[in-house]
Amino acid sequence: MIDLNTTVTVAIAAAAIGLLFALYQRSFVLAQDEGTERMQQIAAAIQRGAQAFLSREYRAVAILVIIVTIALVILSQVPGSGMSILTAVAFVFGALASGLSGYIGMYIAVRANVRTAQAASQSLNQGLRVAFASGTVMSTMVVSLALLGISLLFIVFVNQLGDAAQAASALAGFGFGGTSIAIFARVGGGIYTKAADVGADLVGKTEAGIPEDDPRNPATIADNVGDNVGDVAGMGSDLFESYASSIIAAISLATLTGAFVGEGLVAAQVFPILVASAGLIVSIIASFLVKTEEGADQERLLGSIRTGIYSASVMIGIVVIVLGLSLPFGDMNVGIIIATLSGLIGGVLIGYFTEYFTADTYGPTKALSASAEGGAGIVVIRGLALGMMSTLAPVIVVVVVTLLATSQAGLYGVAVAAVGMLSTLGITLATDAYGPVADNAGGIAEMSDLPEEVRDRTDALDSLGNTTAATGKGFAIGSAAMTITALTAGGSSALGAAAEPAKLLLNPQFVTGLFIGGLLPYVFSALTMVAVGDAAQQIVEEVRRQFREIKGIMEGEQEPDYERCVAISTDSAIRQMLLPGIIAVGVPVGMALLAVIGKGNVIGEFVAPISLVGVLLGSLVSAFMLAVMMANAGGAWDNAKKNIEAGNYGGKGSDAHKAAVVGDTVGDPFKDTSGPSLNILLKLLAIVSLVIAPLIGSAFPASADLIDPDSPPAVEQTTDESSESSGG
Amino acid sequence: MIDLNTTVTVAIAAAAIGLLFALYQRSFVLAQDEGTERMQQIAAAIQRGAQAFLSREYRAVAILVIIVTIALVILSQVPGSGMSILTAVAFVFGALASGLSGYIGMYIAVRANVRTAQAASQSLNQGLRVAFASGTVMSTMVVSLALLGISLLFIVFVNQLGDAAQAASALAGFGFGGTSIAIFARVGGGIYTKAADVGADLVGKTEAGIPEDDPRNPATIADNVGDNVGDVAGMGSDLFESYASSIIAAISLATLTGAFVGEGLVAAQVFPILVASAGLIVSIIASFLVKTEEGADQERLLGSIRTGIYSASVMIGIVVIVLGLSLPFGDMNVGIIIATLSGLIGGVLIGYFTEYFTADTYGPTKALSASAEGGAGIVVIRGLALGMMSTLAPVIVVVVVTLLATSQAGLYGVAVAAVGMLSTLGITLATDAYGPVADNAGGIAEMSDLPEEVRDRTDALDSLGNTTAATGKGFAIGSAAMTITALTAGGSSALGAAAEPAKLLLNPQFVTGLFIGGLLPYVFSALTMVAVGDAAQQIVEEVRRQFREIKGIMEGEQEPDYERCVAISTDSAIRQMLLPGIIAVGVPVGMALLAVIGKGNVIGEFVAPISLVGVLLGSLVSAFMLAVMMANAGGAWDNAKKNIEAGNYGGKGSDAHKAAVVGDTVGDPFKDTSGPSLNILLKLLAIVSLVIAPLIGSAFPASADLIDPDSPPAVEQTTDESSESSGG
Repeated sequence: MIDLNTTVTVAIAAAAIGLLFALYQRSFVLAQDEGTERMQQIAAAIQRGAQAFLSREYRAVAILVIIVTIALVILSQVPGSGMSILTAVAFVFGALASGLSGYIGMYIAVRANVRTAQAASQSLNQGLRVAFASGTVMSTMVVSLALLGISLLFIVFVNQLGDAAQAASALAGFGFGGTSIAIFARVGGGIYTKAADVGADLVGKTEAGIPEDDPRNPATIADNVGDNVGDVAGMGSDLFESYASSIIAAISLATLTGAFVGEGLVAAQVFPILVASAGLIVSIIASFLVKTEEGADQERLLGSIRTGIYSASVMIGIVVIVLGLSLPFGDMNVGIIIATLSGLIGGVLIGYFTEYFTADTYGPTKALSASAEGGAGIVVIRGLALGMMSTLAPVIVVVVVTLLATSQAGLYGVAVAAVGMLSTLGITLATDAYGPVADNAGGIAEMSDLPEEVRDRTDALDSLGNTTAATGKGFAIGSAAMTITALTAGGSSALGAAAEPAKLLLNPQFVTGLFIGGLLPYVFSALTMVAVGDAAQQIVEEVRRQFREIKGIMEGEQEPDYERCVAISTDSAIRQMLLPGIIAVGVPVGMALLAVIGKGNVIGEFVAPISLVGVLLGSLVSAFMLAVMMANAGGAWDNAKKNIEAGNYGGKGSDAHKAAVVGDTVGDPFKDTSGPSLNILLKLLAIVSLVIAPLIGSAFPASADLIDPDSPPAVEQTTDESSESSGG
Repeated sequence: MIDLNTTVTVAIAAAAIGLLFALYQRSFVLAQDEGTERMQQIAAAIQRGAQAFLSREYRAVAILVIIVTIALVILSQVPGSGMSILTAVAFVFGALASGLSGYIGMYIAVRANVRTAQAASQSLNQGLRVAFASGTVMSTMVVSLALLGISLLFIVFVNQLGDAAQAASALAGFGFGGTSIAIFARVGGGIYTKAADVGADLVGKTEAGIPEDDPRNPATIADNVGDNVGDVAGMGSDLFESYASSIIAAISLATLTGAFVGEGLVAAQVFPILVASAGLIVSIIASFLVKTEEGADQERLLGSIRTGIYSASVMIGIVVIVLGLSLPFGDMNVGIIIATLSGLIGGVLIGYFTEYFTADTYGPTKALSASAEGGAGIVVIRGLALGMMSTLAPVIVVVVVTLLATSQAGLYGVAVAAVGMLSTLGITLATDAYGPVADNAGGIAEMSDLPEEVRDRTDALDSLGNTTAATGKGFAIGSAAMTITALTAGGSSALGAAAEPAKLLLNPQFVTGLFIGGLLPYVFSALTMVAVGDAAQQIVEEVRRQFREIKGIMEGEQEPDYERCVAISTDSAIRQMLLPGIIAVGVPVGMALLAVIGKGNVIGEFVAPISLVGVLLGSLVSAFMLAVMMANAGGAWDNAKKNIEAGNYGGKGSDAHKAAVVGDTVGDPFKDTSGPSLNILLKLLAIVSLVIAPLIGSAFPASADLIDPDSPPAVEQTTDESSESSGG
């Protein structure tokens, strides 16, 4: 009925529509009024800063990409390494696509901010439209480029290698390429954004006594650049990888599990690509539904965003049902539909629960605000407890989705659940990328002394952005967990772990691997939290120096040297992310090499392929909890502070407010640096392991039997069992 | 050469010596001068409070013990449940032994405090001697009763059941009984101690402006009682269980792994009992070495404690080598020696690194103090980062010890490593139990207006107690992790998990079990942290009420109603620990029941025996990190505050001090409630699973083959491999 070529054509068509839409939205945004000269000046400074960061980042990224590409090429040439040179090809394309998405997302975001501020002088709806349109540029770019890249590479690889399983294996390089950008954008960006923010506040607000976003503060431009770096480029490349990897894992597991044969196999391979293609189109349609009227409160603004996301979810749900029923899945049609929908609904639920725990319209954050009267210590304790408790919902959702999906469609079910969860990324990511634009618009409105009513509107838009940012972070880690579960399921068999299955639970390498894996997120978080402090300190010193040495700044007669602060943030962010980055790549590579070297000798008793599987699972569990805890505690502290600033418990300047500010200070690196960085740690660990899996696979050939679809292993049995019960 | 009967005789003799020593030390402590009438009054109030808590706790415990005993008896009578009624017998004895140790420990601690204060008026050394002697009463009681209980029950069970493996399985009830006490003492006690502490401070220091430990504060007695409840009774029953379970796991694995036969099997069974017996004796000898001279600084005081611990370690090291060489282990003598010593050294290293991260004589806490100048937010961030980074050392130690031990002696090696680590408990636990006595002594000296020099001495002793408490917590969680690894190794085969080994890594029930396991410590910590806040609030209201309604308190004319505060703390602590306790017991029991019920139907696709193994491993990894992070961050904040109070960075009352106080407030429930409670969560999960394992084992008989020593399973293979390589 539908073959691979037709599917790829469909995907390319969808991606083309997506790219055209992005182009259209870009033109729409750029056609808007840029406002007063003062506004244009400020915006230009932010644009220069963003450009400076991107140039610096991409130079560093380029070096990394070249080194990794060379390493992959060399490895593929080592006889018996089992790795294809196509992995290197996929890697380069993944890095390029992710880098391009981030670049264009940033490009448009730092131009949309000033136009949003200006549009807000017309009406709230106009402001929302411009900011949201810029978000859709980024989100449709990410989705379209990922879809295009995967489809094209997959068909080329299948033709080259003549085998879908090997093609899917090489395709893992595409996700790896995306993550290489993500580590810079997300980790480096996370350090950058908070270093600039904290640094600007420490000297500006505290020492010099000038308000936030005051143009006299040399670090204020760096602060505004930072918002975009972390939440536009970082979030974009993070989700680029999750999105791409979920599709690749589904294609790969369609073959690996051995549950599908003949036209059923083709159906299982094309299904994720078709769902993703449809998801892109419905996201575009739904994005037209995001609008509001004048004077809308937060509840209504949030409602307009929700209308878009929920509409897209309903539409893609229908597509999934239609596709699931019409593709020749044998007796698994209903099972695959249920698995995919469970992921889709799971994503919506994670978003809802994140909002529940972090928005001050609900009980938890309200109680957190109230606790501020007890002092800073109590606020911190309650916020940490809130964050810990909030791990409950996403874990239960991921657990239920995973179990439901596997019971319905085996491991393939987990992968399509991840595809389902991420299918509406075209609109969910737009709501994330919208946040920093609205935030910047508020800053520009403040710096340019726009009228009160405009600032009220940009404040409302900014506030909305805070909530969508928190929700987005919950969604990002939730979908990352699903994707990694799917990736690990696919990868662990290739890893040869199953070679010693009977010994597994009693296997010291596995258990200690779990410990090492559990440890990594803690070390990673410690490093990134301290990195923010160190980088902020450098900004503080630079701002002090400028106040001291450049005469006339405080009188507004002389413009401060914004560029210098941008350069310092950029440099220290990129320097500080090196060690965490090396850990994330070095641990799996190092362990894989030790496992290969240790085969048959004493080293092998300490490190074996199974150790690496332990590390993957251990880090998945540990990082998932920690990331959700950090993101939600951070979001709740932020909103608790805002809740008090809105006049509760004594309002701004009260003791409760001071206590809440302490909570927010702790929450800043939690939610914007360490928490999101853990996504990248997780995904780097998983994808690096997956990419080097063939190396281990060929060193431990006995373990490769699970990869061979001809030998019917335990996996097939699982799927058989589950399809039976789903039928019954 | 040596048979089971002889070994049990040796153990009983050692336990008898231990009990006699405890009796001697008790008489020594009670013979000391009780000081002035005022001191005796205060001490009597603390004693009444402690008595009130213990009565209330033991009433609650008794109900739990009766219910669990009945449940165990009923389960053992269900045909085909596979459980022996002897498990119930062991449970009752374990509960009694643990309860008795805690009771006597508390009894002597609340009598030693006032005598320590009085002894400190003679000399620093005399104060140290009295406080430390009271610690040894508790520590030798714990070790002696555990050793006595295990030896006697083991030989009786072997005679009854005629099979060492089944006897060891039933013996698991002994550890379970110990944990049932621990959940009350450690979790309830942890909530109690901080509720009283925080509640007393909030009204006393902040509202009424009276100093800490002021007799006019109605909550001050509850505060002093709390110190004993958490760190004497709690720590004691916590380590009672670890100690007992490590020995039981070793005996059990000697049989289960199938690596030992004939006289080798007997040697492997008696070895842990002999090491433990010798450990008790050397601890008693080493405790005589703990003494100091007048005017000793912290470094010297710490040195005197270290002398005791290190001497005991060296002595037991020699015993291990002698035993290992003389017992007929076949070719595994050297391997078993190395495994045991690696645990012993690992324990010392964990203690050292805990001290490194939490004592203000080293870099990390010094840097934390310095960061207080940046404000409360920065202190909290740096403290959390410090705590996270400090997980590195214990994890690496546990990983290396586990791998080394297994490579040398298989899974049995892990168990004897845990036995080695805990072998010096007779002295290490004494240093923990010493802390609250010194703390109380300081409080009594303050309340009774003893001369400045006496308070200087009690302050020095108290400060030493803070460091040993932090070290003790690190050791407690490290040894718990080792014990649980050994228990899980023994238990998971009995759990029948290995029945589906080939599917394991690809097994959704396993992976989702890991997630649920990873989640539990977060939920548990959130609940206990909030419980402290809620309980403290009740104290605050009661203290306010007394100030309002009882005239003449502030003038010192009327004594406040201390008992009421004690009663409130007690009641709310025991009420608040119910939910965490139910979770810890309910999750494994519930999952086991679901797994049994779900066999062969749709529930089985969601919950299977393997799910429970996932929960165990997931919680082990997650709780280990979290507990170490909390304990060390809490210890470091406490010492950073003290460092500032000693005159650094502006000293008491400075902004840096206020910031450090916020850190300490966050750290209090971290280190004294949530962190230590996680030990209990972990151990309850492990031991409950182990106890109900036969139930699962008989429902899934196919999986039971690993238990049968006659069928040579993969386990044996592992051990063979490792013994081969250890020989080569």
